[in-house]
Amino acid sequence: MIVGKVVGSVVATRKNEGLLGSKFMIVEPLENMEKRGRIVAVDNVGAGIGEIVLVALGSAARIGCALDTAPVDAAIVGIVDDSIGLTEDK
Amino acid sequence: MIVGKVVGSVVATRKNEGLLGSKFMIVEPLENMEKRGRIVAVDNVGAGIGEIVLVALGSAARIGCALDTAPVDAAIVGIVDDSIGLTEDK
Amino acid sequence: MIVGKVVGSVVATRKNEGLLGSKFMIVEPLENMEKRGRIVAVDNVGAGIGEIVLVALGSAARIGCALDTAPVDAAIVGIVDDSIGLTEDK
Amino acid sequence: MIVGKVVGSVVATRKNEGLLGSKFMIVEPLENMEKRGRIVAVDNVGAGIGEIVLVALGSAARIGCALDTAPVDAAIVGIVDDSIGLTEDK
Amino acid sequence: MIVGKVVGSVVATRKNEGLLGSKFMIVEPLENMEKRGRIVAVDNVGAGIGEIVLVALGSAARIGCALDTAPVDAAIVGIVDDSIGLTEDK
Repeated sequence: MIVGKVVGSVVATRKNEGLLGSKFMIVEPLENMEKRGRIVAVDNVGAGIGEIVLVALGSAARIGCALDTAPVDAAIVGIVDDSIGLTEDK
Repeated sequence: MIVGKVVGSVVATRKNEGLLGSKFMIVEPLENMEKRGRIVAVDNVGAGIGEIVLVALGSAARIGCALDTAPVDAAIVGIVDDSIGLTEDK
Repeated sequence: MIVGKVVGSVVATRKNEGLLGSKFMIVEPLENMEKRGRIVAVDNVGAGIGEIVLVALGSAARIGCALDTAPVDAAIVGIVDDSIGLTEDK
Repeated sequence: MIVGKVVGSVVATRKNEGLLGSKFMIVEPLENMEKRGRIVAVDNVGAGIGEIVLVALGSAARIGCALDTAPVDAAIVGIVDDSIGLTEDK
Repeated sequence: MIVGKVVGSVVATRKNEGLLGSKFMIVEPLENMEKRGRIVAVDNVGAGIGEIVLVALGSAARIGCALDTAPVDAAIVGIVDDSIGLTEDK
């Protein structure tokens, strides 16, 4: 998983039917994370813009969020309240 | 998922039979997205050149678009009509 | 999927038995594609050196080419005859 | 898999229920590894901060750690005690 | 798949039980390959340090090497004896 900040959202009226009812949030990974650019993730926990969240990528997003047959490859699966070593240098 | 612009299409007469009937679009991810170069995605929503689309990657493209046994690893699954924070800086 | 050029091939006599009978081609992605370096892909369509091909990555290569239990993560699944916007700038 | 150093941890009170009971560690891949930035991995072996660990990525993390239906895409699956050629040049 | 050179190995006494009996080799991808840094791969063919090998990544490593429930995301699946165009320029 990676940790990122919710910076926006996307609306798509015409979409795959497996995506109906999903909210698409734009997540910017924190600076030292393995992923460097923005990801569109389905919101699984009620995250809002500005929150720091945990994002699962790949089949984990689909299967771990009961979206088994939806074309989803990223999901917000937690809201980060606390951390050690998240942004500091090694 | 990532958001990108449809910039072209690819024709392959000789191909895996699971791909028969699929339309292959070339998608250029928006500049601040996690993916930086062009992706060939199967069109699942009737997208045209120039449109801004939502692309699902990996097994999500295959399973989420009822192409379970096709060699597909990317699919256009939505057409973006509106967004907050898609292109702006943090 | 990505589009690339077949630039060579690899021979491995000692290999996992699921790979027996497969031809391993070296594919160089076109310059503006999402993948930047060479990939070894199983040939599913009879591609030759110098041809421009469509390559599927990840589980799609395995499952989409009836190689479900083989350790294959990339496959040539089409030969590109024509395209719009494949190499041009946005 | 990649080898990295555990540099911290993340706490998320509001999270997907498949993640209840999991410990989220922040792993910094060693310098010459294929992954360059930090990854949040579920701890499967009781790793502590400062330890050098083996991390499995993708569906392997989920399925290999009996977390089949959890949104987990990275797991610490071993603690490295010894190695040859881990940090040296080629 | 990618082609790389076996440059070392890793020992982990405390590990996920699905990894018992597996040998973890460190593979350095050849210079023009899609993956740029070192990968820890389970050895499926008896590869030794210094050998040039074929590495399968992702679920292919697990499922293609009969390690379906092990947290394995990379495996050495062939030893390269010969090649055309592996290291040359386009």
